Amino acid sequence: MSDLHGVLPYLVSPIAPDGRVLDEVLARLVEHLIACGVHGLTPLGSTGEFAYLDAAQRRRIVEVVVEAAAGRVPVIAGIAATTTAEAVRQAREAEAIGADGILAILEAYFPVPEAGVVAYFTAVADAVGTPVVLYTNPQFQRSDLSLPALEALSRHPRIGHVKDASTNTGRLLSIMDRTEGRMRVFAASAHIPAAVMLIGGVGWMAGPACVVPRQSVRLYERCRAGDWAGAMALQRRLWRINELFTRHALAACIKGALEVQGFPVGAPLPPQPALSPEGRREVEAALAALEIHAEGT
Amino acid sequence: MSDLHGVLPYLVSPIAPDGRVLDEVLARLVEHLIACGVHGLTPLGSTGEFAYLDAAQRRRIVEVVVEAAAGRVPVIAGIAATTTAEAVRQAREAEAIGADGILAILEAYFPVPEAGVVAYFTAVADAVGTPVVLYTNPQFQRSDLSLPALEALSRHPRIGHVKDASTNTGRLLSIMDRTEGRMRVFAASAHIPAAVMLIGGVGWMAGPACVVPRQSVRLYERCRAGDWAGAMALQRRLWRINELFTRHALAACIKGALEVQGFPVGAPLPPQPALSPEGRREVEAALAALEIHAEGT
Amino acid sequence: MSDLHGVLPYLVSPIAPDGRVLDEVLARLVEHLIACGVHGLTPLGSTGEFAYLDAAQRRRIVEVVVEAAAGRVPVIAGIAATTTAEAVRQAREAEAIGADGILAILEAYFPVPEAGVVAYFTAVADAVGTPVVLYTNPQFQRSDLSLPALEALSRHPRIGHVKDASTNTGRLLSIMDRTEGRMRVFAASAHIPAAVMLIGGVGWMAGPACVVPRQSVRLYERCRAGDWAGAMALQRRLWRINELFTRHALAACIKGALEVQGFPVGAPLPPQPALSPEGRREVEAALAALEIHAEGT
Amino acid sequence: MSDLHGVLPYLVSPIAPDGRVLDEVLARLVEHLIACGVHGLTPLGSTGEFAYLDAAQRRRIVEVVVEAAAGRVPVIAGIAATTTAEAVRQAREAEAIGADGILAILEAYFPVPEAGVVAYFTAVADAVGTPVVLYTNPQFQRSDLSLPALEALSRHPRIGHVKDASTNTGRLLSIMDRTEGRMRVFAASAHIPAAVMLIGGVGWMAGPACVVPRQSVRLYERCRAGDWAGAMALQRRLWRINELFTRHALAACIKGALEVQGFPVGAPLPPQPALSPEGRREVEAALAALEIHAEGT
Repeated sequence: MSDLHGVLPYLVSPIAPDGRVLDEVLARLVEHLIACGVHGLTPLGSTGEFAYLDAAQRRRIVEVVVEAAAGRVPVIAGIAATTTAEAVRQAREAEAIGADGILAILEAYFPVPEAGVVAYFTAVADAVGTPVVLYTNPQFQRSDLSLPALEALSRHPRIGHVKDASTNTGRLLSIMDRTEGRMRVFAASAHIPAAVMLIGGVGWMAGPACVVPRQSVRLYERCRAGDWAGAMALQRRLWRINELFTRHALAACIKGALEVQGFPVGAPLPPQPALSPEGRREVEAALAALEIHAEGT
Repeated sequence: MSDLHGVLPYLVSPIAPDGRVLDEVLARLVEHLIACGVHGLTPLGSTGEFAYLDAAQRRRIVEVVVEAAAGRVPVIAGIAATTTAEAVRQAREAEAIGADGILAILEAYFPVPEAGVVAYFTAVADAVGTPVVLYTNPQFQRSDLSLPALEALSRHPRIGHVKDASTNTGRLLSIMDRTEGRMRVFAASAHIPAAVMLIGGVGWMAGPACVVPRQSVRLYERCRAGDWAGAMALQRRLWRINELFTRHALAACIKGALEVQGFPVGAPLPPQPALSPEGRREVEAALAALEIHAEGT
Repeated sequence: MSDLHGVLPYLVSPIAPDGRVLDEVLARLVEHLIACGVHGLTPLGSTGEFAYLDAAQRRRIVEVVVEAAAGRVPVIAGIAATTTAEAVRQAREAEAIGADGILAILEAYFPVPEAGVVAYFTAVADAVGTPVVLYTNPQFQRSDLSLPALEALSRHPRIGHVKDASTNTGRLLSIMDRTEGRMRVFAASAHIPAAVMLIGGVGWMAGPACVVPRQSVRLYERCRAGDWAGAMALQRRLWRINELFTRHALAACIKGALEVQGFPVGAPLPPQPALSPEGRREVEAALAALEIHAEGT
Repeated sequence: MSDLHGVLPYLVSPIAPDGRVLDEVLARLVEHLIACGVHGLTPLGSTGEFAYLDAAQRRRIVEVVVEAAAGRVPVIAGIAATTTAEAVRQAREAEAIGADGILAILEAYFPVPEAGVVAYFTAVADAVGTPVVLYTNPQFQRSDLSLPALEALSRHPRIGHVKDASTNTGRLLSIMDRTEGRMRVFAASAHIPAAVMLIGGVGWMAGPACVVPRQSVRLYERCRAGDWAGAMALQRRLWRINELFTRHALAACIKGALEVQGFPVGAPLPPQPALSPEGRREVEAALAALEIHAEGT
C-alpha cells in the first residue's frame, strides 16, 4: 500500500444541521467514486472541512469512509492539529479505525520554527505503521514545508509522499530533485494535473476529483500512457472546474457541485457561506459543458 | 460588570507534559495578580495558547481561574472556534462556570465573508448574558473586523468592547469615532498602552501585564489621573517588555518570564519551542532593569 | 536648521496635462501654508507623487518651493532612487537649489539586503551638508528600515530624523528607545499625531497638513504645551481627514481637497485615477464639518 | 514578426562603474546568443535591471542590441514606467531605434485600479506599430493583470502575447482559456518551461536562457517535436539553473554566471549586491554539471 498513486478525491464532510455526520450520503459518494475508478479516497482534507469538525465528527467521517471503501481502494485519512500530542492521537485513531495511510497537516496559530515542523511530522510518522503523506498549503496555514525540511523528512521510512497545495508548480520539480525521488508528489487543485504528471508526479489529491471522477481517471490514464496530446485535450476542459475554486469558496463549491449531481451533502458549516445562487449556476454550467463534450472522449 | 476597564492580564495556560492543567500554579498566579491590583483576568487569550488546548483543558483553565478569583475581579474567558455552533457551546460553558464576560475570537481556515463574521459574533452574544469583548488579531487570524462590521456589532446590547491586536493604533481611534463611543477599546501588547489611554482607550488586555502587573496598574492610574508626563516616564521603561514579544514567541516569552519570577508554568505546548537560553537572558535583563529602576517610581 | 520639528506638510505636485509644473499654484500653496504657520515644507514626498515625476519635473518642483519659501521655513526636499548614484545626484541637486534638508527614500525592485540599505542612506548623507530625514514606508516600498539599521544610521552626523509611514505606532517608541533619542521621529498620516507627540515625537510630515494647516499647527502647539485634553479634542476631529486616505488614493485625495479649497492643482498623473465624485463629496463633507466646528476652538 | 515564439533570453545590462553602457560586451553577448540559436532577444526585462537604469542608459542598451542583432532575430525591448506618458515615450523611442516588439511593464507606487492598468497598456499599444508583449510580475510589482483585464487587452490588434512571471502555472492555462487563444503565453524563469510548452505556451522569456542558450533551444525543439520524455530529461537538469534564482538575487546571479562564461558584464548597480562568493561557487557547480552531462545529449 506504500505505492500510493492516481486520483484520490478529497471527500466532502456531509454534516446535518444538528452536527451529525450524514453517514448514508457519504457512503453512497464513496461507492460512486470507487465505481468511477478512483485510486483512493481522502477524507478530512481541506475540502473535507477538517478545520471545522470536532473530534467526534472527524472520527465518524473516517469510520464511514473506511467501512464503505471496504478495502477496495486505500483510504488516506487527514489528521490536523496545532500540537504534536493531538496529531499523534488522531493518527493512531485513524489507523485503528482502518485507514491505509495518513495525510498529515500542521495547523498553527503562532509561527513554528522549522525544527518544530520536522518534529511534528516525524512524531506522527513514528506513531503509525502506515504511509504518511505530508500536506502543505501556504495559503491557509501559517507554516510551510521548506525544501530542507522536506529533504530531512523524506528519509523517514514512512514518509514518501507530499501533497503541495501551493500554486507554485516549479516547487514540485524542486522537491523531486532535492529528495532524489524519495518524495513522490501529488498535485493539488491549484496545479494543472497533466503538467504535474509530466514533471514526474504520481497523481493528485483534490476536491474537484469528487465532482469529475470518471474524467479525472481518464486524464490520469492518458498521462500514464504518455498520450500527452490526448491528456491536454481533456485537461483543458477539466481545468474550468478547478478554476471555479479560485472564484468561490472551496468546500461550498464542491458541496454545491455534488448537490447538483444528486448527493445531498448539505452546505459548509456556518459561518462559512453556502454556494451562492450565482456560484451554483456557474457550477451547473461547467458540469453541463463537460457532460456534453465528454460523450465523445 | 459591564464597566470593564483597566489592566486585565492575559493568563498563561500552565499544562503538564501529560496534558493536565497545573491548577495550583495557575491559582497562585491569579492570587498574585489580584494582590498586585489588576482589574480583571483573561484566561484563554493568545498568550493562553487557546489554539493549542483541547476542550477539556480549556474548560479546566476557566474553572480554576474563576474559582481562584472568587469574584474579586471580573474573569473574561476566551472562546475561539471556526464554527458558530462550537463558539456558542464554549461561551455557554464559560458562563455556566462563572465567567463574568466572554472574549470572543473567530478562528478561520478559509476566508469568511463579512456577513459570516458578524453572524458568528452575534450568535455568541445572543447565547450569553454577560458582556462580550470582541477580539481581532489580523496577524494570526484569517479574518479581520472591518469598521462597518464593528459598527454593526456595537449595536448589540452585550457587545461594547473590542480588543484590537493589530499594530495599527490609528485604527483604534477610528473604531471609537465610527461607533460614536459605543465600542470601548482595550489595547493589546502591540500598542503603546499610554498612547491608547490618551486617545480614549479603557485599558489593556495583554500578556505582558502577567509579568509586570504592579507597574502596569501604576501606569494605568497615572493615565487615568491625566499625569501624562509621569505615565510616559513609566511607559518608556515598560515598553521593553512588550518589545521582547516581537523578538520571541509570545507564549514562550511570558511563560519564561513567569518561570524567572517563581511561577513554574512550564513551556508552551510542542511543537511550539520553549524560550531559548538567549531569550531567557533577555527576559531576565529586562525584568532586572525594571525592578532596579522601579524602586524610585 | 538641524532642529527640525513641527508641522511639515507634504506638498502635492501640480502638473499640467502637458507635463509642465504649475509654478504659480504651487507657489501660492506655499505662501498659504506659511501664512497658516507651518514649520516647514516637504516637496516630493509620497503625496508629491515623486514616483511619477521625471528628473526635470522633480527639479522644478524643488526650485519653485525653495524660491517661494524664501528662507522663512525650512524646505526638506524628497529624493528617491533605486540606485545609490542617482540618489546622490538628486540630493546634491536639491542642496544646490537651496533645500534646507533632504527626505531620503529608497526605491527598490528586487529586495535589498540590510547592508545595501545602510550604504544607500549613508552615501546620501555623505553627499550633502544638510540634515537628512530617513523615510520608510513598508506598505509601498520593498524595503524597510530595521531597528539595527536605524541604530547604525543614527550615528551619522547628518542623520537625526526619521519619518515612519508604517501604521505601527509602537515601532516609533522602539526607534527612540533603541537610538537613545539620537533619532527624532516624525509621524506620518497613518499615525495619530497627538499620540506620537505624547510618546516623544517632534512633529509630523504628512499630506493632510496641506489641507488643514491651521488646525494642524494648533494641534501641535497644544501637544507642545502639554495640553493633552485640548489636543485630543482637536485630534479627534482632525482624524477624519486622515481616515479619508485609507479609503481613497492618497495623492488624489489631497489634490481633490486642495481643489475644493481653491487651489487648482489638477489630478494625479495617469494612470492614477482622479478623486471620484463620491470621494470628492466625502472630502467636502469632512472639510465642512471641520470649518463649522473649528470656529470655537 | 507577430509570430513571436521560442527562446528569448532576458539580456543583462552591462554598466561600467561610471554609468556608461559596456557596448562591446553586450554586442558580443548578442552575437553569442544568436550563434546558439535563440529565437529573439529581450533587453530591459527584470534581469536587465530596467528599474535601475536612467533614460539614457535604457536607450543605449536598446541601440546596442538592435544594432548587434542586425535583423537576424527579433528584439523585444522592455519599457517600464509609472505614468502612461513616459511609457508611451519609451515605446516610441524603442520602435524608432528599430525594436521589433515591446515588452510592456507597468510600475506602480500606489495601487492602480484595473481601468488604469488597461488604459496604460492600451496607450502603449496604440503608440506603436509593433507587437506588444504584456509583462506581469506580482512578486515585484504593485499591480497584477487580472483575467478580465487580459481578456480586454487581448482584443487589441497589437497585443497578443503575455509573459507571466508569477509562480502560478495554472494561471497560464486560465489565460489561454479565457482569451480563447488570442493571448499567447511566454513562460518566465519561475515556471517550468517544458510544462508551459505542454499546456500550450509558445516559448519563454527568461534570464537563465542567457546562461544556457544552447540547451534552452534544444529543450524548446524537443517540446515542439512532442518528445516529452526527452524534453523532461533535459528539463530536469536545466531546472537547477532556475532554482539558483530563488536563492540568489536575479540580476546578480545571471551576471555572475556570464562572468564565469567569459563575458565581463560587471555587477548589478549598487546598492544591489554582487553575487556572493558562495553564490558564485553554486553557479560554477551548476554550470559544470550541465556541461559535463550536456555532451551526451
